[in-house]
Amino acid sequence: MALFDETCAAIVSVDRQAAADTQRLLDQKTKPRRSLGRLEDLACTIAAMTGRSPPAPLCKAIVLMAGDHGVAREGVSAYPPEVTRQMLLNFAHGGAAINVLARHVGARLLVFNMGVCGPDQPIPGVQSRRVKPGTDNFTKGPAMDRESAIVALEHGIGIAAELAAAGVNLIGIGEMGIGNSTAATVTGESPQTITGYGTGIDDATRARKVAIIEKALQVNRAHELGALARLAALGGFEIAGLAGVVLGAAAHRVPIVLDGFIASTAAMCAVGLAENAAQYLIASHRSVEVGHRLVLRRLGCEPLFDLGMRLGEGTGAALAMPMIEAAVRLVHEMATFSQAQVADTGR
Amino acid sequence: MALFDETCAAIVSVDRQAAADTQRLLDQKTKPRRSLGRLEDLACTIAAMTGRSPPAPLCKAIVLMAGDHGVAREGVSAYPPEVTRQMLLNFAHGGAAINVLARHVGARLLVFNMGVCGPDQPIPGVQSRRVKPGTDNFTKGPAMDRESAIVALEHGIGIAAELAAAGVNLIGIGEMGIGNSTAATVTGESPQTITGYGTGIDDATRARKVAIIEKALQVNRAHELGALARLAALGGFEIAGLAGVVLGAAAHRVPIVLDGFIASTAAMCAVGLAENAAQYLIASHRSVEVGHRLVLRRLGCEPLFDLGMRLGEGTGAALAMPMIEAAVRLVHEMATFSQAQVADTGR
Repeated sequence: MALFDETCAAIVSVDRQAAADTQRLLDQKTKPRRSLGRLEDLACTIAAMTGRSPPAPLCKAIVLMAGDHGVAREGVSAYPPEVTRQMLLNFAHGGAAINVLARHVGARLLVFNMGVCGPDQPIPGVQSRRVKPGTDNFTKGPAMDRESAIVALEHGIGIAAELAAAGVNLIGIGEMGIGNSTAATVTGESPQTITGYGTGIDDATRARKVAIIEKALQVNRAHELGALARLAALGGFEIAGLAGVVLGAAAHRVPIVLDGFIASTAAMCAVGLAENAAQYLIASHRSVEVGHRLVLRRLGCEPLFDLGMRLGEGTGAALAMPMIEAAVRLVHEMATFSQAQVADTGR
Repeated sequence: MALFDETCAAIVSVDRQAAADTQRLLDQKTKPRRSLGRLEDLACTIAAMTGRSPPAPLCKAIVLMAGDHGVAREGVSAYPPEVTRQMLLNFAHGGAAINVLARHVGARLLVFNMGVCGPDQPIPGVQSRRVKPGTDNFTKGPAMDRESAIVALEHGIGIAAELAAAGVNLIGIGEMGIGNSTAATVTGESPQTITGYGTGIDDATRARKVAIIEKALQVNRAHELGALARLAALGGFEIAGLAGVVLGAAAHRVPIVLDGFIASTAAMCAVGLAENAAQYLIASHRSVEVGHRLVLRRLGCEPLFDLGMRLGEGTGAALAMPMIEAAVRLVHEMATFSQAQVADTGR
């Protein structure tokens, strides 16, 4: 609990002067002022978050956390719960989409078992931070107890601290867990507006999913709960873990790249626990999942692109990384008007 | 003229079977069906254009063409005409935005002087295909004669053929030329709807720009002209050259990545000359320039992202390349359900 409290308290506001300084550098480069649009904003955002102008060259990592959900037994997903574990092995063997995309963009990929069912034997390529083998079914009571939520959060905080110490200065977050788009009800949005089709359920299953979420909110008296109790009652181990990564990264002034609905939900939990964390978030894509739009709006994040994706795993975060890195490289590598002897009209 | 005619005739329809085959490969990968959205479309598109499933790994190049415009003397730009030449030297020295972005995404950058004013002495890092030192002022008559337009087109065709022979299988197109957003009136859209703020002019200058374009359309009897005559009357050497690149690339089944307003205008000229060329275009971004939206719609292209950019040079094309490459790598590198022993529910 001490680590959790200290981390939340350590998250300071971003450095607006660093952003202004980086904009001034960009305004001297051989291009019309502001003609690189949001690429310029990204460079300034990274400067503000890290407190450095020009922002340092990026060292990128993606933290992918997996967990199982008791509620998956209610038949809310198109896939059986065993798939979480099967995908964990797929990540370990390098065959999943995020493996391909992390390699492609030159990001380290770290995979964590936060609470996957089955034996807890070591899997090469997967680090175990397993709190429990899956959450409890939250239609019958809380998904986890408060202590377990803190353990998961502090695992995430520790992981972010280790990465920051190793020089990582851009962290993408990704998740995998059958049933976790049901657990994303932890955001507090109304079940009807936030519930989508997850990995591909049909309308009847979606209606059941809405009913199950409504039941979970009642059973857990969700409207009476604060941020931490709500995360414990309705979240998941991977969601709590990623919320911890967000808190830890923000405390170390490391920018966080969001992914889809669940990862953004984890970030929203983090912001509920420490408001300043919101200043360290960069949205990557907007997913098909209807709730993602709501969560991004609540976070005040405008996505960089919308490619109709709905896979999770950190795939959108990975795709955004070359854009963010491009922004930083432009600050370092472009010539100024005076260096290049190009006429500057100040426009 | 023979090369031009042969090239237009050689552009065949894309291979829809290859696209379907690639979609079938993607449907076996460890992810819910279609959950990678437009990334899956991109892989299938590349397969259709190149006629290969799975599509071959990408070898990327950006062709950047520069030219001067007689109409720039009418004061339609925020920058003086000398800036075209100054930027050519900046490209040669590696200090422009496109140099940084091409390096960043691992694309070869080829810079061509298609018609820049000033001495035609060799510039290391710039290849001269100069037709003339700038177009004529098209408010007083055609920008260039028909023969010059053909020369520029055939230069572009030759460049695309050389790149295809060297194994390049993805070509981004970019441009630089003070005054060329005025020359983009070659598209045939009405001046009021298509005229924007270029590199950053004010409202009074924009009003003058509209008036100048209207005058040019009258003087050249634009409404009576076919595609080639229109390109000669209202285009530019870099626009005609890039139209040639599009034709040459399409004839060699090499996918083309569009950039902003001017580059997309060049592609629209190519489609006017050979309709099938439209099947080989991939839109990268949507720029701030109002005409870009219209041109992309006419081309039937949906951009991958909108970052509020308005620089040109191929910068948007470069940023899209990692996305396109990601799509192709997913087809090759992801594990199938059976390889990874992940349960496939067919959803």
